[in-house]
Amino acid sequence: MTGAVSCSKLPVPIRIIHHPLTLMVILGKTMGIKKPFTEVIRANIGDAQAMGQQPITFLRQVMALCTYPNLLDSPSFPEDAKKRARRILQACGGNSLGSYSASQGVNCIREDVAAYITRRDGGVPADPDNIYLTTGASDGISTILKILVSGGGKSRTGVLIPIPQYPLYSAVISELDAVQVNYYLDEENCWALNVNELRRAVREAKEHCDPKVLCIINPGNPTGQVQSRKCIEDVIHFAWEEKLFLLADEVYQDNVYSPGCRFHSFKKVLHEMGPEYSSNVELASFHSTSKGYMGECGYRGGYMEVINLHPEIKGQLVKLLSVRLCPPVSGQAAMDIVVNPPVPGEESFEQFRREKESVLGDLAKKAKLTEDLFNQVPGVQCNPLQGAMYAFPRIFLPARAVEAAQAHTMAPDMFYCMKLLEETGICVVPGSGFGQREGTYHFRMTILPPVEKLRTVLQKVKEFHIKFLEKYA
Amino acid sequence: MTGAVSCSKLPVPIRIIHHPLTLMVILGKTMGIKKPFTEVIRANIGDAQAMGQQPITFLRQVMALCTYPNLLDSPSFPEDAKKRARRILQACGGNSLGSYSASQGVNCIREDVAAYITRRDGGVPADPDNIYLTTGASDGISTILKILVSGGGKSRTGVLIPIPQYPLYSAVISELDAVQVNYYLDEENCWALNVNELRRAVREAKEHCDPKVLCIINPGNPTGQVQSRKCIEDVIHFAWEEKLFLLADEVYQDNVYSPGCRFHSFKKVLHEMGPEYSSNVELASFHSTSKGYMGECGYRGGYMEVINLHPEIKGQLVKLLSVRLCPPVSGQAAMDIVVNPPVPGEESFEQFRREKESVLGDLAKKAKLTEDLFNQVPGVQCNPLQGAMYAFPRIFLPARAVEAAQAHTMAPDMFYCMKLLEETGICVVPGSGFGQREGTYHFRMTILPPVEKLRTVLQKVKEFHIKFLEKYA
Repeated sequence: MTGAVSCSKLPVPIRIIHHPLTLMVILGKTMGIKKPFTEVIRANIGDAQAMGQQPITFLRQVMALCTYPNLLDSPSFPEDAKKRARRILQACGGNSLGSYSASQGVNCIREDVAAYITRRDGGVPADPDNIYLTTGASDGISTILKILVSGGGKSRTGVLIPIPQYPLYSAVISELDAVQVNYYLDEENCWALNVNELRRAVREAKEHCDPKVLCIINPGNPTGQVQSRKCIEDVIHFAWEEKLFLLADEVYQDNVYSPGCRFHSFKKVLHEMGPEYSSNVELASFHSTSKGYMGECGYRGGYMEVINLHPEIKGQLVKLLSVRLCPPVSGQAAMDIVVNPPVPGEESFEQFRREKESVLGDLAKKAKLTEDLFNQVPGVQCNPLQGAMYAFPRIFLPARAVEAAQAHTMAPDMFYCMKLLEETGICVVPGSGFGQREGTYHFRMTILPPVEKLRTVLQKVKEFHIKFLEKYA
Repeated sequence: MTGAVSCSKLPVPIRIIHHPLTLMVILGKTMGIKKPFTEVIRANIGDAQAMGQQPITFLRQVMALCTYPNLLDSPSFPEDAKKRARRILQACGGNSLGSYSASQGVNCIREDVAAYITRRDGGVPADPDNIYLTTGASDGISTILKILVSGGGKSRTGVLIPIPQYPLYSAVISELDAVQVNYYLDEENCWALNVNELRRAVREAKEHCDPKVLCIINPGNPTGQVQSRKCIEDVIHFAWEEKLFLLADEVYQDNVYSPGCRFHSFKKVLHEMGPEYSSNVELASFHSTSKGYMGECGYRGGYMEVINLHPEIKGQLVKLLSVRLCPPVSGQAAMDIVVNPPVPGEESFEQFRREKESVLGDLAKKAKLTEDLFNQVPGVQCNPLQGAMYAFPRIFLPARAVEAAQAHTMAPDMFYCMKLLEETGICVVPGSGFGQREGTYHFRMTILPPVEKLRTVLQKVKEFHIKFLEKYA
């Protein structure tokens, strides 16, 4: 047909989508040809349960009780799970997960989130009024960006993001017609954030836009670094100087592995820097049910905490959220269990502790294994995986490989990842999907397969890489 | 603080939010004063379970089984529920609701949706590739509008919406900086859609924008009319002539009460009009788990079916959806049960049929009761509630009431609804939140309270109205 709608100016010029789909679709097209592998390994997305990680029993028990309250009479569910379920249901309209919640989220869950943050931050108070439950962290991030970018002014709003970044940021910035302002993480220095680089980025950005928002991902995705306390202080000071709104993506706050590394929340550091900072710097921080040790991606649970947000903007935020009514109430319930798990003395505590430590212990092992094995491969260089759940190794590609990619009008690392997929069934995401310094190439691989499987995967990548180097030498 | 962000140009100039929050917040401010009621009745939002409607047992059984698969071994769950749960889990990554699904939704659920549509439409085929699972219908509507509005061209995109409308449409149009083009439903004629009025609206709109999209809500929200087959044909013919993309909001497809009224899907009528139409007219239709007889609002389940969407736009749609990863998988599972309920011969069928008929039977009773009682009140005029779950009566307000409202800088029907809330605890939404012809006043009230409670509510509204007329006579 002629088409009532022209698609010549579509809003999302995203080349690489952070999702199995993109590469799988391309693969599907060549599926007729016999492949030298029996199984596709989706190491491209942080989807723990898809890789075989088992759900935390307690969380699913509470969810089942909330879903089908007849089970509250069943002797096969522990009392502490029933107590949690009753409390959540009492806070829901008609005592049902099937009712809409307030757009900001169920009250008692926001209270539990605030209590969790207060505990996490050693007593720094959190106010349930500042907590917004969201449809995964992605929803919170895109909603707050929408509010901040529309803040008026003569020139376009600049949003600072790390490079490499998680592609949600570039996609939303593009959707909102804001200006993406890149600051580069320091690969030579374990992907650290250097405030001088922030300063450079803001100075140059001011020539063509109005930088207003600074996004930080800590622990880093795709880069896995964990920011030092000193670095966070420097960033906050810089945001204060430059009147930047801080967006702290802290969804990997439970995923810290390297000895000597610790998660410091922006909220806590902000508070400890004293009232000049804590009463002035605007901050939004994000968390999610999808990562950590629970890996409940499918429930799309998340929250954001806002600090020093102007009351009028808060009002607009609630209005904007109201348009979509409310986040999924089952995701809100899952978030509740993440922030309010069993405590010592409760019936389910031992099992919960065992399951949690098993997941986090395995991830720490796999982080080290991945770093070590990648660094044994010629032409691969991998920073320590201090946190999160990804390796982002640099790959040094021969000039002939780069030419071959160009002949296919592909980014060289995309070409590499396609070949890896075709020859081994291992699906990873090229660095060009996250951004990287010109002339460098990387890929992101999750460390989520079970330990022994991950070892096999890494061995296969190594063999592929060596053959690839030989072929294009 | 000085504020890094100015809120002078915020994106959502929505005055009335379709959510308890708005009016409840205003009420909260005056809560110190003793109120002449003991309970707030939230007749302002289509939230069945919050009003005491019980979930459909089978749906919650399947959901509980999917949530906590240990229950698959429990003798207290019926086999047909277990069968559904196993099928859904097998289609999920790692057999878990906790994994991300494809951005378009779980494959087997999209297949079930397609099979449902085919059955519903008497054999008109539906293609799972054209089905997109969404986070409630709202998400589908705003996503497709985002794609369509960004379609380029010199002038701004016009989107035709009914007046009165469901405020999601005006909010999203405003967010997207598109042009809202109003066409008025005919109140004198049971809120029918008149194609001549569409023609007028498009003709006038062409002077200042490029009308590309035509939104229809059938059965109507807030107006409750059910479109005749003839009317749908006329609309499709008009869309074909004018090359308009049709958005058919059909979330109340199960909610038809008036004898002589039937739900006709746009898809089916389009097909029956022959290939000139069925191969050319572009259509997106929306459905949801939130309405009908199941009322599962909190799960945020929904789907959209697209017809004749340009393949390139389809690709962009998947990209756009991928940015937020996937809709909640629990909501997808709920959608599956809505489209794939127990059938005769299955163990759970009788109970399912009984529960479904009870809900729909009560709604039909309440629709008639509401119409009859409103029409007994002087100065109130209410069209038949043919479908959906709302009354939208016209109220004739005395000139002195209009003046009193103006003195409070309030829309007259907002003033009326605030007084109603303060004096009776009954929360309804003023017509000005949906749009109405200049100089007419309405409110929207749900028919969701249980029959006897609804009768009391209607009686209280009647008494309030008579006193209100006396006061401002």
